[in-house]
Amino acid sequence: MRLLLIHSDHIDYQAQKKTPVAEEGAVLQDGLDEALVAFCAVESADEEDIDDVVDRTVAEVLKTAGELKTDRVLVYPYAHLSSDLAAPEAAKKALRGIEEGLNAAGGLTVRRAPFGWYKAFTLSCKGHPLSELSRTIVPGGEEEAAKPAKKT
Amino acid sequence: MRLLLIHSDHIDYQAQKKTPVAEEGAVLQDGLDEALVAFCAVESADEEDIDDVVDRTVAEVLKTAGELKTDRVLVYPYAHLSSDLAAPEAAKKALRGIEEGLNAAGGLTVRRAPFGWYKAFTLSCKGHPLSELSRTIVPGGEEEAAKPAKKT
Ligand SMILES: [Mg+2]
Repeated sequence: MRLLLIHSDHIDYQAQKKTPVAEEGAVLQDGLDEALVAFCAVESADEEDIDDVVDRTVAEVLKTAGELKTDRVLVYPYAHLSSDLAAPEAAKKALRGIEEGLNAAGGLTVRRAPFGWYKAFTLSCKGHPLSELSRTIVPGGEEEAAKPAKKT
Repeated sequence: MRLLLIHSDHIDYQAQKKTPVAEEGAVLQDGLDEALVAFCAVESADEEDIDDVVDRTVAEVLKTAGELKTDRVLVYPYAHLSSDLAAPEAAKKALRGIEEGLNAAGGLTVRRAPFGWYKAFTLSCKGHPLSELSRTIVPGGEEEAAKPAKKT
């Protein structure tokens, strides 16, 4: 699982066009102010233990939301964060699991953008030092943070 | 080199705070409408042949800009696209090389966001099927596109 966590002034999206793996029944247009946007790429390695990766992704998002003192989260599928993606059904299961896990934690407004649609979006990143974070989560492993010394 | 190419209605950024590897003398605030934003993560493997990676990155950006019929490009360093980054001096050299190569091609408005600064940004992605593309470029190798069937 590759995660890109962005503390935003504003995020909105509008689903535009289905891909062959488009999720049905999802919210096709939505937006949040003052939110943490969790861009997620579910990777093939995650299929070894989806539940574990989901649990640790939820924990990482909750920790970051707490540090940023935000109570709004948008889970946003973002295939472009990885070149080794999970199968679509596994990815959808993981994304729904992340949404459910965040909701189960309580106290958060949680939204999720649909998987498998081309989407227009507008995103404003706050730009403070903790407003952009990336994480790699592997089944059974430790979270790996980007090296701060190499920040661009 | 990991590239994320976004066809945008609008992009603007404001540099907020230096990191220890901040580039000096760069443009700290800028914006473009109707632009291709080339988010770039220069990777450690690229240090084997920076000039080659720069040349092929320039070619890829020019090809995409042509297909999208846009003549405005913003080169934007984005470390979060990779977990195996080049050393900062190599990254700066590559990013400057990409800017120079795009300018040398002629006919484009080219801007470059500074390396090594925390930046606020606002980005609007158009959302059509070619408005988000990712590429991996390795020295001496072939461009690798994300698998379209796994698009999220
Ligand atoms: Mg427009």
